[in-house]
Amino acid sequence: MPEFFTVRTPPDAWKLLRQHFAPHIRTEQISTTDALDRVLAAPLASPQDLPEFARSTVDGYAVNAADTYGASSSLPAFLTIIGEVAMGRTSDLQLGVGEAALVHTGGMVPAGANGVVMVENTQIVDKTSIEVLRPVAEGENVIQIGEDIRTGDAILAAGHSLRPQDIGGLLALGITTVTVARPPRVGIISSGDEVVAPDQPVVPGQVRDINSYTLAGLTRRAGGQPILYGIVPDEQPALEAVAQQAHLECDIVVLSAGSSVSYRDLSVGVIAGLGAPGVLAHGLSVRPGKPTIVAVAGGKPIFGLPGNPVSAMVIFDLMVSPAIRALLGATEQPKQQVQAKLARNIASTAGREDYVQVRVEERDGELWAVPVFGKSNLIYTLVHADGTVKIDLNANGVREGVWVTVFLH
Amino acid sequence: MPEFFTVRTPPDAWKLLRQHFAPHIRTEQISTTDALDRVLAAPLASPQDLPEFARSTVDGYAVNAADTYGASSSLPAFLTIIGEVAMGRTSDLQLGVGEAALVHTGGMVPAGANGVVMVENTQIVDKTSIEVLRPVAEGENVIQIGEDIRTGDAILAAGHSLRPQDIGGLLALGITTVTVARPPRVGIISSGDEVVAPDQPVVPGQVRDINSYTLAGLTRRAGGQPILYGIVPDEQPALEAVAQQAHLECDIVVLSAGSSVSYRDLSVGVIAGLGAPGVLAHGLSVRPGKPTIVAVAGGKPIFGLPGNPVSAMVIFDLMVSPAIRALLGATEQPKQQVQAKLARNIASTAGREDYVQVRVEERDGELWAVPVFGKSNLIYTLVHADGTVKIDLNANGVREGVWVTVFLH
Repeated sequence: MPEFFTVRTPPDAWKLLRQHFAPHIRTEQISTTDALDRVLAAPLASPQDLPEFARSTVDGYAVNAADTYGASSSLPAFLTIIGEVAMGRTSDLQLGVGEAALVHTGGMVPAGANGVVMVENTQIVDKTSIEVLRPVAEGENVIQIGEDIRTGDAILAAGHSLRPQDIGGLLALGITTVTVARPPRVGIISSGDEVVAPDQPVVPGQVRDINSYTLAGLTRRAGGQPILYGIVPDEQPALEAVAQQAHLECDIVVLSAGSSVSYRDLSVGVIAGLGAPGVLAHGLSVRPGKPTIVAVAGGKPIFGLPGNPVSAMVIFDLMVSPAIRALLGATEQPKQQVQAKLARNIASTAGREDYVQVRVEERDGELWAVPVFGKSNLIYTLVHADGTVKIDLNANGVREGVWVTVFLH
Repeated sequence: MPEFFTVRTPPDAWKLLRQHFAPHIRTEQISTTDALDRVLAAPLASPQDLPEFARSTVDGYAVNAADTYGASSSLPAFLTIIGEVAMGRTSDLQLGVGEAALVHTGGMVPAGANGVVMVENTQIVDKTSIEVLRPVAEGENVIQIGEDIRTGDAILAAGHSLRPQDIGGLLALGITTVTVARPPRVGIISSGDEVVAPDQPVVPGQVRDINSYTLAGLTRRAGGQPILYGIVPDEQPALEAVAQQAHLECDIVVLSAGSSVSYRDLSVGVIAGLGAPGVLAHGLSVRPGKPTIVAVAGGKPIFGLPGNPVSAMVIFDLMVSPAIRALLGATEQPKQQVQAKLARNIASTAGREDYVQVRVEERDGELWAVPVFGKSNLIYTLVHADGTVKIDLNANGVREGVWVTVFLH
């Protein structure tokens, strides 16, 4: 009977995939204000010093630090006020010896001054003079030119996903447009004679399409653009036609369908027909998710995912998401994860990666990972889980009470 | 000189805020397929059993388990094939004693059958009969009616943020629309005579607006809709007019501006003028972020954030984001966080919460949190940081090598 022909470990399958898949990162230029969560396509260097002028960090008086040395409440330094630095204006004041200028937080420190004494540490004598009650050091309460960032400094590397503070940092430098990777197009094909669209009535024997929409959400989260090709009957000509169209129009093709042997034969045949080098792995040594097909055709990754929703999600995270990230040129940030103590022993078999769905619970201030037992063909196994714990390829399970990393969904 | 009048700890300020702020959650009905990351406004219960029919989990023969008891390779059970269950069809087959029906993975288990023997454990005798080489238990290889979820079972609670697998779970039940919270409108006002729009040229003394766009991004991440009111000069009538408009049009108002004492006086006056009960905290015992104003006017939270970008982000996470989540009715999921070892001693003062920006580095497979030293008025302190470590109100700092939780940006 038909079985899996070329079972590989997930790392081996990925390595093989990458040998035949040289991602071409397509780029576009967009407004920086629209670039949240987009991936930079080129490194950015600073076009200027930030700040471009010495700024005061306090409300006070810009002074020459040497004029305040030794000052105290009992023996204050006496300085002449030569003016006020207006906010948002270039100050043309020029301090001489024994002179001071009123300056506000964020205001420009005028020429001749090298420190700012806080207003709390001064006493007004009259309109044109103050007493300084504490000395200031050179540079005290001043942000120097280029202290935030200097002209030519690397700001952000290619592959970085832009966060709110990055947007702020770019705009601070007047960088109002950025070149980012376009979201890769991920074609999603659902197949199965028993599968119907979610808004259609079902009769016993039929099930509603779950995977198309779950995979579309996962694609969006990874930074891709999902393109749904609908539900295709389990017939070779129909599936072939849709797969070829998706392969033409998309950067990645994902077939999600029934898990029956007949379907697997059908889809492996259709995938093999899309082009060279074709099927690289037919079966992965992972649970759940063994009935996976990993292929490349004409430089584009093609995945045949198991029909079970839990398996499909595990394999998406393991294979499809990294392929999307590769097409974005994205460097990986630390993942969404928490450390938790395992609430039960988990058995496993060496030579196979296991992915266990868990709920994260807080007990007396400690996080616990509670395995959600449920068959991988049950969607509510996923709905009731907060994340996944990986049991390594060569581990024989993990004991209760051990700290594990939960990768959050 | 003017100072902070009512300094409170962040928990006290939040408690006081919530006494005057009873969030009214506005809802809307949208398509489930568009509901990724939206917050459910009402709990959902299952309208049906899932699956609605007993499904096979393997390719094989539906049988009456009792007919296979004691079967082995040497003494197989002999069964008569009465037909095949077509995928996606309601089967009208009815098994009698000694009968079997061919069934595929995901197919309906016909009446009279209570288990499925895998095809691998059978041998075809002729077109109408098989030998079963191993017994099956009752229920083996069958997903029972309602095994995934039962009619009336709670699916998801109000306040839950919808993930890809939740979308799949809802669609599996034919739930094609959901009632979710509308994104709260967050009015963002930037103020300061020295602040100019990022696309404008600057002269020494001026700085580009950082905070409006950083805060807009943080608002989006929290699930709110940012509404930018532009840059307002440091003049009471102008700021008052814009603040009143934002207060009228939005659910939350955030003023972000200079940190000078004169500005703080101006903004506290403008905020106090928006309505009762007015300013609840004028100063927070947190570093960075002390010059914060927390207020409620007419049931709407109003925040005066410090002008420094690092302080503004810390206070946003601490106060504004929870207010947005409250208006969404959102229950909190485990946060994006990693455990890491602190790479240096951090000093702190009891009686004040400290938030330290850190970079997360991997060294020999362990994560380390490396404090990013930089003044909180430097935007690149944030750009170079991966997350924040909190030093508790009553801690006197944390020692190098201690495991800390890093809340990722």
